[in-house]
Amino acid sequence: MFLKKKVYYRISIVGAGNVASHLAPVLEGAGHEVVEVYSRQFSNAEQLCEGLYNAVPKADLDFSGSNAQIFIIAVPDQHIVEVARQIVLPEGSVLVHTSGSIDMGALENDSEASIGVFYPLQTFTKNTEVNFKEIPLLVEGEDKATLKIVKSLAESLSRKVHEVDSEQRAVLHIAAVFSCNFTNHMITIAQDMVESHAINFELLKPLIAETISKSLNIGPKAAQTGPARRGDQAVVDKHTLFLEEANPELAQIYRLISQNIVKSS
Amino acid sequence: MFLKKKVYYRISIVGAGNVASHLAPVLEGAGHEVVEVYSRQFSNAEQLCEGLYNAVPKADLDFSGSNAQIFIIAVPDQHIVEVARQIVLPEGSVLVHTSGSIDMGALENDSEASIGVFYPLQTFTKNTEVNFKEIPLLVEGEDKATLKIVKSLAESLSRKVHEVDSEQRAVLHIAAVFSCNFTNHMITIAQDMVESHAINFELLKPLIAETISKSLNIGPKAAQTGPARRGDQAVVDKHTLFLEEANPELAQIYRLISQNIVKSS
Repeated sequence: MFLKKKVYYRISIVGAGNVASHLAPVLEGAGHEVVEVYSRQFSNAEQLCEGLYNAVPKADLDFSGSNAQIFIIAVPDQHIVEVARQIVLPEGSVLVHTSGSIDMGALENDSEASIGVFYPLQTFTKNTEVNFKEIPLLVEGEDKATLKIVKSLAESLSRKVHEVDSEQRAVLHIAAVFSCNFTNHMITIAQDMVESHAINFELLKPLIAETISKSLNIGPKAAQTGPARRGDQAVVDKHTLFLEEANPELAQIYRLISQNIVKSS
Repeated sequence: MFLKKKVYYRISIVGAGNVASHLAPVLEGAGHEVVEVYSRQFSNAEQLCEGLYNAVPKADLDFSGSNAQIFIIAVPDQHIVEVARQIVLPEGSVLVHTSGSIDMGALENDSEASIGVFYPLQTFTKNTEVNFKEIPLLVEGEDKATLKIVKSLAESLSRKVHEVDSEQRAVLHIAAVFSCNFTNHMITIAQDMVESHAINFELLKPLIAETISKSLNIGPKAAQTGPARRGDQAVVDKHTLFLEEANPELAQIYRLISQNIVKSS
């Protein structure tokens, strides 16, 4: 039998927000050591460290004296490039970010660290635990050796580790915008609509839950229903007309998506 | 203590499709008697009756000799008016349809039957059992006496019975198109997109499931995330540009929904 040797890393985290707060205890739970936590707001770094074993809060990005092997940037997307430009890392270390929409190349910097990506494809809610074992972790490395390190770190946390390059990650991110952000907004539109007609939104919830469960089980193409799908133009026109009076923008959204459903049927 | 007396009805069903097939055994399970089943395709009526106690398949819409008290039209929306025009009913009976998008008034006919609506707000899949007790049943009646009958029938099947007039039902139906049909189509778009870049769609499923569960638990407004929500115009532009080249229609959908998210934030 082949036994994979477990490797434990010393890791420092840049950021103390949602992703960092979820990641840090999970890393420790898997046997790694969180060495340092940096945050622009020092008090946030302090607070996160309080729940960890030996982690030290840090107020600057000079890690030249650090003994960490992996540095994880978990800050908002728009600050990643800036952090990568400022950070000073020990030689031979690995620098990764956790973002879906930023190229690995954004991490290139003057330190002699190699770069990669460690992207958990999941939405994190404050104070809500997630089962990391089931979260897809998408990894990338600038060379084989770096990829191997990032991958072994990912595999120590999750059963679902996938190598995905920056272009694929960008596509996944757009796909996630459609299938998560936009689906959620469709539900917002529905809620506003029923509540403005004195109908309890609770009424729609079982239907929504069943629809999504069906979509994920049998696949969204087979699960598609509704007037556009069955070519019921009379109902589509009636709905569009109704929306035109109430909210022209929604009418336009309704029309476009209906056309797209017809086209892909 | 107040004990509500259970009333059992003799019921005939017009239609032998998805809704009829789910409804008939549930009616019998609640103690009602399914007397007749009509279908344009007689063999479908026969097949449905095989699984019922005493129901007789019927090849025409002349029910003048029937002893049923309630007649349920469960045919595709576009055939409801036609069926209501042709059907002949015994005096004093009640005629309902099961549609979300058709006015109660569409049932007006020459027979001396009163009319109502009996709309299960759920999607039915062939050969998949649903728990009717949890399905919202939206009822309407042309007068108090009819409403009372339709409501007592509904309450014998479900814990979630709501009086909803035709206008509210129409709004609910449009809201269901957004929150179910359109959400499902967003998932189709995502699947097409990732698969055309050699990425396994399975990767996105946990994120979608978690997003919807969060949306229904804390409400879609609080659950909204993504570039449009956080005002990250750089990412929105990058995504739109990418889509513009790959599929201009999707770019337009992306732009419109993003604008709508920004507007409702």
